[in-house]
Amino acid sequence: MDAKIRLHLDQHLAPGQPLPLTRDQAHYLFGVMRLAEGARVLVFNGRDGEWLAEVTGTGKRGGELTCRERTRPVRMPPDLWLVFAPIKKARTDFIVEKATELGAARILPVQTDFTNAERIRQDRLQAHAVEAAEQCGGTYVPEVEDLQPLSRLLAGWNPARRILWCDESRVGAPAALHGAEPGPWAILIGPEGGFSPAEQARLRALPFVLPVSLGPRILRADTAAVAALTLWQATLGDWG
Amino acid sequence: MDAKIRLHLDQHLAPGQPLPLTRDQAHYLFGVMRLAEGARVLVFNGRDGEWLAEVTGTGKRGGELTCRERTRPVRMPPDLWLVFAPIKKARTDFIVEKATELGAARILPVQTDFTNAERIRQDRLQAHAVEAAEQCGGTYVPEVEDLQPLSRLLAGWNPARRILWCDESRVGAPAALHGAEPGPWAILIGPEGGFSPAEQARLRALPFVLPVSLGPRILRADTAAVAALTLWQATLGDWG
Repeated sequence: MDAKIRLHLDQHLAPGQPLPLTRDQAHYLFGVMRLAEGARVLVFNGRDGEWLAEVTGTGKRGGELTCRERTRPVRMPPDLWLVFAPIKKARTDFIVEKATELGAARILPVQTDFTNAERIRQDRLQAHAVEAAEQCGGTYVPEVEDLQPLSRLLAGWNPARRILWCDESRVGAPAALHGAEPGPWAILIGPEGGFSPAEQARLRALPFVLPVSLGPRILRADTAAVAALTLWQATLGDWG
Repeated sequence: MDAKIRLHLDQHLAPGQPLPLTRDQAHYLFGVMRLAEGARVLVFNGRDGEWLAEVTGTGKRGGELTCRERTRPVRMPPDLWLVFAPIKKARTDFIVEKATELGAARILPVQTDFTNAERIRQDRLQAHAVEAAEQCGGTYVPEVEDLQPLSRLLAGWNPARRILWCDESRVGAPAALHGAEPGPWAILIGPEGGFSPAEQARLRALPFVLPVSLGPRILRADTAAVAALTLWQATLGDWG
């Protein structure tokens, strides 16, 4: 029987390991997907790879899987962070989903001078990352941080991690990435309206920042995030 | 006064040209945006560039702008088509929006062996392309074709137009694009579940098809569309 359902579980995975289910997980597997005892699902916890598990107990408010055998090792993404200014709800959700699919290791929402968002639902965004990993065959879930000011993030920045800055002033062709060194990187995407003049001046002065233009058309922030992740993965990441 | 509103009008644009408004346009400008006589908006028709226009008549069911002066020439995208298999409604809308932002010249939805969609709302998708061009500063709107079978499209294909095939079998690094010749191209994105074995064999046998892998993670069709448009624009398009 083909195991199509993939479930993220925050539990240790090993052969024979019993995996108790939460109420929500039981509702999904038995109420929505109508699985019966003996059915198989794929499970992962972001650390131990992907495992085949079998339904060994069903119930309305709970149930249990039993972990059987590992089907795939964990595949870590490259050491790439996505730093972005949250925008409207649906598009912020979308950015987290796409960053997970495209292999960002960590997702950092930031407040910039032109960011309207005062706070984010970190738990909801983290759940989006989990769901994206479930749906897209991932074995790793990027951590979504809580909202923090860009200025504070930059003040404590490790200069060994370079920043690919998607710069609306349109200097720097994407080809500049070809000469860039691999290693830890972050992609920085601004809000609608871009970065303030003060932020632009600060970013321009940082030696580890590489400004890159994403073409002659104005991109929405969510489009820019996907485009920048793509360019980075294709030149410095694991798309080779 | 700053003209922030951009409106696509299917009318000839020239200095002094009166531009009668439809009921929907009048509702948007006067009911929603509360513009009064003398207010300025930017208009474009996809052919004559972007123009400054002035409100010279307002009404609940109509009104008129008068075209003043051209603010930007038309900027045509490169000769790039996006051929894709429609998926769920929201994600299909999203693909059309992103293809417009990223500079596709023409958008062709196709039925493949694994496509569920029997038909599309071509008019609604075209309206999405118009809206994306309005919001993103574009002066060109790609034409969205009606749904057609992929097999028929390929049967009449001009071999001078190369196809970048986003191939889930994961052969061909994105770097292959660097050696590719510029000119007319199309990007081909499959549905969830990919292409059937028969379709894959047919595509593989076509000399103008370049298969390219989009990395080791499984991408949703909408992510794949944005990623492929990005790679093409950055290597063969107008992002240089």
